[in-house]
Parts: sequence; C-alpha cells; structure tokens
Amino acid sequence: MLNFTFHNSTRIHFGEGQIKSIAKEIPVTAKVLITYGGGSIKKNGVYDQVVDALKEHTFFEFSGIEPNPNYDTLIKALDLINEHNIDYLLAVGGGSVVDGTKFIAAAALYEGGDPWNIVAKQAKISKALPIGAVLTLPATGSETNTGAVVTRDGNKLPFGNPLVRPLFAVLDPAVTLSLSDRQISNGVVDAFVHTMEQYLTYSVDGKVQDRISEGLLLTLIEEGPKALSDESRNNLDVRANIMWSATLALNGLIGAGVPQDWATHMIGHELTGGYGIDHARTLSIVLPAVMKVCREAKREKLLQYAERVWGIQEGDEDQRIDNAIEKTEDFFRQMGVPVRLSDVDLGVSDIDSIITKLEEHGMVKLGENRDVTPDVSRSILNAAL
Amino acid sequence: MLNFTFHNSTRIHFGEGQIKSIAKEIPVTAKVLITYGGGSIKKNGVYDQVVDALKEHTFFEFSGIEPNPNYDTLIKALDLINEHNIDYLLAVGGGSVVDGTKFIAAAALYEGGDPWNIVAKQAKISKALPIGAVLTLPATGSETNTGAVVTRDGNKLPFGNPLVRPLFAVLDPAVTLSLSDRQISNGVVDAFVHTMEQYLTYSVDGKVQDRISEGLLLTLIEEGPKALSDESRNNLDVRANIMWSATLALNGLIGAGVPQDWATHMIGHELTGGYGIDHARTLSIVLPAVMKVCREAKREKLLQYAERVWGIQEGDEDQRIDNAIEKTEDFFRQMGVPVRLSDVDLGVSDIDSIITKLEEHGMVKLGENRDVTPDVSRSILNAAL
Repeated sequence: MLNFTFHNSTRIHFGEGQIKSIAKEIPVTAKVLITYGGGSIKKNGVYDQVVDALKEHTFFEFSGIEPNPNYDTLIKALDLINEHNIDYLLAVGGGSVVDGTKFIAAAALYEGGDPWNIVAKQAKISKALPIGAVLTLPATGSETNTGAVVTRDGNKLPFGNPLVRPLFAVLDPAVTLSLSDRQISNGVVDAFVHTMEQYLTYSVDGKVQDRISEGLLLTLIEEGPKALSDESRNNLDVRANIMWSATLALNGLIGAGVPQDWATHMIGHELTGGYGIDHARTLSIVLPAVMKVCREAKREKLLQYAERVWGIQEGDEDQRIDNAIEKTEDFFRQMGVPVRLSDVDLGVSDIDSIITKLEEHGMVKLGENRDVTPDVSRSILNAAL
Repeated sequence: MLNFTFHNSTRIHFGEGQIKSIAKEIPVTAKVLITYGGGSIKKNGVYDQVVDALKEHTFFEFSGIEPNPNYDTLIKALDLINEHNIDYLLAVGGGSVVDGTKFIAAAALYEGGDPWNIVAKQAKISKALPIGAVLTLPATGSETNTGAVVTRDGNKLPFGNPLVRPLFAVLDPAVTLSLSDRQISNGVVDAFVHTMEQYLTYSVDGKVQDRISEGLLLTLIEEGPKALSDESRNNLDVRANIMWSATLALNGLIGAGVPQDWATHMIGHELTGGYGIDHARTLSIVLPAVMKVCREAKREKLLQYAERVWGIQEGDEDQRIDNAIEKTEDFFRQMGVPVRLSDVDLGVSDIDSIITKLEEHGMVKLGENRDVTPDVSRSILNAAL
C-alpha cells in the first residue's frame, strides 16, 4: 500500500426528506445564493423543498449552469455575489452545478486578477465562499470532494482545492426518481468508471481499497439496470444504493493509498470539449479501449476484476481478460451508452485533432505509470473505433 | 436503506514514517500533553519519533493509561492539565489510550461537577480539549470516531461526543511490527466483530454497506493469520491492510444507513468488567453464541455471510448457517482467541452474576431489534458455555 493522507469533512445527510436539514446547516444570518441548472428542480419539487427549508434565510438565485459548466456562464454569478454581499453558496443539482459552484466560490474571492487563472494556470487560491450541496443526480461525487471541471472555448479543464469542498451534502434518493433514462445511465456509468480509474492499475496489495472498489462495481452492475427497468424504476432502495455508490466512488476513499489511472477521463474530456458528447458516454467509449491497450500493465488487476466482479473462472489468462472486457462493454450497452467512437459518429479521421487537443492541454503522460503518451492515446482511440 | 447522517472529519496520515506529520498538525503554540500507556512506546521507538517531531513544541507527559482505561487513573491527568495550562492532547497508543484521552479531554473542561457524570449519567458536554492520535495498535477504530469506553469499580461503560473525535490520526503500520501475538490477535478479532455488529442484522438492502463490510471481513480473514505467521510477520502490507481495516470497521461508514446490533459488545463488557478478560476475547466468546441464538432474526444476512465471506454454497439453509458459524469459530481459534466461556474458566455458575450486571447497567433490551432481554442474554451465555 502507498502512503496517503485521507480527509473528507463533508457532512452527509442521506435519505428521503433530508433536504430540510439545510436549514440547520446554513447559518440563518447568511446571505445565500442558490445555484442551479436548467430548471428541472422547479418541475420535480426540489426547488420548493429548498425554498421551504430556507424560509428563515435570505437567499438569491443563479440559474442556467449547463452540463459541462462554462466559464462564461459561471463568471456572471460574480456580479450577483458582489451586489448582494452573498456569503454562502448552495448548489442544487448534479455534478455540473456543484462543479460550477466550486469555481464561483473560488472566483468570488480570488485576488490574483483573471479568475480563469484558477483553472488555466492552476493558480493558488487562499479562500473561497462556503458551499453546501443538494444533489439531484448521483454521478460525479463532486458533492463531497475538492475537484471540479470547467469548460471554456471547448477546453474542458480540471481544478481542485480543499477550500471548495462542500461543507455539507444532502443526498435524497427520492429526488432522483424524476431523472431521465439518459441521466440515470450517465450517472451509473460515470460512477463505475470513477471506480475503475482508481482500481484498475498495477497492484500495491491495497486489499481494503480493492474490496471496496469491487463492492461499488458490483452494486452498480446490480442496481444500474434496475433503475432503468419498468418493475423497479421507482424502487427507492435501488436509487439509494446507486446514489451512495456514486458518492463513495469519488470521495477520496478508494483512491487513498493506491495508484490512480485517469487516462480514460483525460481522453474523454477531449471528446466532450471537441464534440459535445456527454461526459459518461465518452468514458464508456474510452475505458474498454484503455483496458485493451494497457492490458499488460494492468494484467494482474484485470484478472482479479474478471474473477471478483464478473465471476469469470474459465479459460486461460487472456481469455479471462477478454471476457471481462466484453462483460464491461455488455454492461455499458445494457445501460444504453455507446462503447465505440462509431456509435457517436466519430471515426479515424477525427483522431488527429483529438491528439492535438491532448497535446495542447499537456495530457502527454497519462495513466498510473505516466506512459500513456500521445502515441498510446492514439492506439487507444484506434482501439475504440 | 435507512436515513443517516455521516460525518468523519479526522485527517488520517497513513503509512511508514508518518509520525513526523504531527509537527504540522499541532499548532506550535500549543501546550501539549502526550498521553500513553505502560511504556511500550519507549521500547519500540514510537516515543522517540513523537518527541523528535515535537521538538519545536512545548509538551508534557502522562503515562500509565491501562487497558480498559480506569477512571481513577485518568482523573489524575486533570491536575497536570491545570498546572501547565495544557490545551492539546496527543494520545500515543492503542484504543485504550485513545479512549482514555477522550475522557480526559472532556473531563478537563467539564463544568457540571463530578466528571464521572459524563459517563455514568451521559451528561452533556459543551467543550473538550483538541485531540490528536498516534495509533500503535489497530483494533478499536477509536482514533477517528467519537466513542470511548471507561471503567470504574468493575463497571465498563461507554460515552461518546463529536467534540472528542481526534482532529487527526497517524496510522503507521511499521509501528505495529513490535506487537505481541496476543495484541495482534486481539486487534484483528476486535475489528472483525466491530464489522459483524454492523453487518449481521436484518437486511435493509444496504448493498454498499454490506459489500464494504464483507470486504473488511475478507481482508481480516486473509491477513490476520499472516500477521501471526513466521513467513509474513514482518510484511508491512499485511500490517497496513489490517490497520486500515480496523479503522474503517468503526469510523461510522459501514454502520451508516443500516441497523446495528452491539449485543455481543454489551455482554462482552461484563466479562471484562467482572473477570478482567481481554475485550477482544470476550467478543470471540460471545459472537458465535449470538449468531446461534439470534439465528432467525439474522437468517437472511447469515446466509449472505456464509456465501460471500466463506464461499459456502453446499447444503440447506440451516447447514450453510451452521457451517458459517463453525468457520467463524475456526477463524477465531486460528487467531488464538477463546470461543467458549470454558476456555477462560467460566461456567454456568457465573451466568447469574453476569446477568445481574447487565441489568444493573440497563442492558436489558439489546440488539438491533431491542429484543435481547436478560432472558435472551442468558440463552446466549448458555450457548457460549
């Protein structure tokens, strides 16, 4: 096991009816900015629950944060914050709203000039507005972690800082019942691939981390399809299990003390930034190709994954690995997401520009061994055709 | 899944050489009291590492905290704290030292008269001294949680408060290499039973919690015997996996959103309080008997445990459960701990006084269903003969 520091201080209120707990979490003297997306929270009752909980508070609203939150949108919140002396942000939405709110929280108190430096130059920040989160779409884990991804001019770039970790997060699985099939699928696949990025590496004998990761994968494989099925679409336990899996997949726990890959994400970001493909759908295309191309470096863990997650015992090593990759693709197909570039109408002629973007963004030594060079990324994209 | 609030703010520094991180964690202006036990930390080098890390700090020492920390010992620390205006406690030891330090932290700032009220009357506390922990014996999980157990006049009683949760904990598996076989065994069994108390209940379809618990059990079953074996006694990964399992077994995670039992612990406490039996060794005696007597209420989970933890697939339901209980006892025996009252020279004639103590301590409705009355506890003790 590798040395690590683990710290996750977010207080989680989990379960049906927990939105009311925001009233106790946010000081009644705070001036709150509720941040949200396209307005689905007004249709599914979440907005009403939030406003009801904050009836003793002073609050304002900032809506319109889009999937893959855009710098040009987010920066507009700063005027509102300055005008009303906002001192608390409440993100109500999915990972994009939480990520966008993290950027707003840092940008609002940034004293180093252009706030884009926070992302583009990974500029140091020394303070940020406090954030709370009411999660409506389990997927990214952003509600308890320190990271965010922001897009500008087709460039989708990460930043992170402990100062932007939400102080609390409300996870009410009942609010996920109104999600579309596409949102459910994307969330389950996103959480699945987050887990794989921290699990499918060379082994450092982190037995606890491996077992927890396998537990999350098994839960997502078991519950994901149920959330799409007619019989169990409204089963709250299914939604709760998915929601808790997605949070634990990226709260720092399973990645503590083990190597981490993230090549799938970095290549996937270019597919979103360049072609507008849903984040999770880029991951389901890239991950199987990473498994194929990085097979030797990941051999031991691939065999463990085959046995423990898919119960594969038959065949020689390579057959078992092939079988595990096929099962992974089958699961993604079952969840209704693409597994090939051709599924989203991209082809070999697009690869050059994807590689160029990776190089522009400095993504030239990816993976847990820093050996996924642009040439290897090209092989991965070819394997994903 | 049940509704829950989960919060664990302890910052964990895990790995060889991490003791030096206490220098950054404790403010250099603090007046620190290092609390420890019988002096093993002076033999195994931990004391030297701690003192070296604190060379810029002002610190004092309080030693002699015994296993099952005693009120009469702990209360003596208050004079030292008052005399030197101590404002930070650093517990260096196992669960007993951490538990005892939690009581000292609360008692030092208690304003409600006799500090024993904190335990005996569960009196409210409104402040406590800050605590850091350097763990030397992985077992209780006390290093990141809010609970403690204190003994007075043969009465072993719990208390808990978020104010006494350690702010940070150092987990260096290398410091566990000097533990005796008995300490290793006790630690592994303690962590195993902590997991079982939160896992082996009726099911609420908490799939993630179940998978994580099973992962911890599988890890302890795999690594525990290795830590006792000649070939792998000094394997740091083995020690790291045990240490991380023990912390996660009682940091609040696996018990969030699921029922919890704890009857084994409450009955076990009377065996320690009344007869001085090591805590873990009371658990290994009581747990198999609880599994037998509470078999019907726990049937579904017992079958899941049999299959997922022990790989038992053969036989009818009752055979599979019997087999799982036998495997559990075999594991305990392999770890060198007793599994029957007769193994520690207790017999049927002792049961009356154990039941009387349980009644005196109000332990009359134990278990996840509150149906382990003194009569049921008597059946459990009879099953443990």
